Amino acid sequence: MNARDYIRSIPDFPRPGIMFRDITPLLKSAAAMKHVTQQLAEPWRDQNVTAVMAAEARGFVFGTPLAMELGAAFIPVRKPGKLPFETSAWEYDLEYGSDRLEIHRDAVDPGERVLLVDDLLATGGTMEACLRLAEQQDAEIVGCSFLIELTFLNGRERLQPYDVHSLIAYESEAGDD
Amino acid sequence: MNARDYIRSIPDFPRPGIMFRDITPLLKSAAAMKHVTQQLAEPWRDQNVTAVMAAEARGFVFGTPLAMELGAAFIPVRKPGKLPFETSAWEYDLEYGSDRLEIHRDAVDPGERVLLVDDLLATGGTMEACLRLAEQQDAEIVGCSFLIELTFLNGRERLQPYDVHSLIAYESEAGDD
Repeated sequence: MNARDYIRSIPDFPRPGIMFRDITPLLKSAAAMKHVTQQLAEPWRDQNVTAVMAAEARGFVFGTPLAMELGAAFIPVRKPGKLPFETSAWEYDLEYGSDRLEIHRDAVDPGERVLLVDDLLATGGTMEACLRLAEQQDAEIVGCSFLIELTFLNGRERLQPYDVHSLIAYESEAGDD
Repeated sequence: MNARDYIRSIPDFPRPGIMFRDITPLLKSAAAMKHVTQQLAEPWRDQNVTAVMAAEARGFVFGTPLAMELGAAFIPVRKPGKLPFETSAWEYDLEYGSDRLEIHRDAVDPGERVLLVDDLLATGGTMEACLRLAEQQDAEIVGCSFLIELTFLNGRERLQPYDVHSLIAYESEAGDD
């Protein structure tokens, strides 16, 4: 099975010139989701991962299955005002304006070994924010796992020095590979 | 194992007088998540569920594990502007203002048997919107599964005539049961 066959490319979304990589056909296949969950887990199986961390909303789609596959906890990263307990936050720049993500202050246990996951690595802003949140709480960061990587945006550089793994790479905006 | 032991009650969130039922301790336990996923699936195992539908963001946390547990597809329900393909929408009233949810127009296959899931049944507005979206696309609705039900808000009535199942019930705002 090739996970790439379950990604639909939709031109000009959310704006002209952008090729959106749509994961809903993948979600529609139970077999493909099982395959992808195992593949996302594969590089980290001997790394003693104790928690998987992911940001809302699409990160949650892969976050809980991956956590369960690894027998690990799940730590949600949320937009402001969503988490009810004390939080720590990280603010980061977007193309226009800024965004802010939060986790609970008690989310990370001492010695926690955290794997971060998201559906897509583009410029890396969201994942960088997640890494900073994990670092703030003294997590041991095992690495970052992505379903899709847009390699031409070089988001991987922004995530150094951590290990980064992705299942599907697109090497240009419009290309099929 | 009692899933209720993994829910943390936090007073006065998001506003004074509201007791927020925090699921993050449950997410933090791989064993509790496995237990809850199996329990959410239990009433529907002989119902030939072909797809699980859930709304962002907390619905996603239980939606994909439940879909995988039942060997079913996952159909995400999203806020406006998030889905890249053609969508159908449902708008619904909130206490102040209104909200709108969307699914892809090609999300539901002919004869699809859909189980809807969310973490919390409060007044039922979000789930009612999900039901209307599923009905618009001629889904056969199997029922609705919730982790938590706030029975004193009577949300269940709003979801008639569909089968509703919940794992944990709170019978008053401040109570422990």
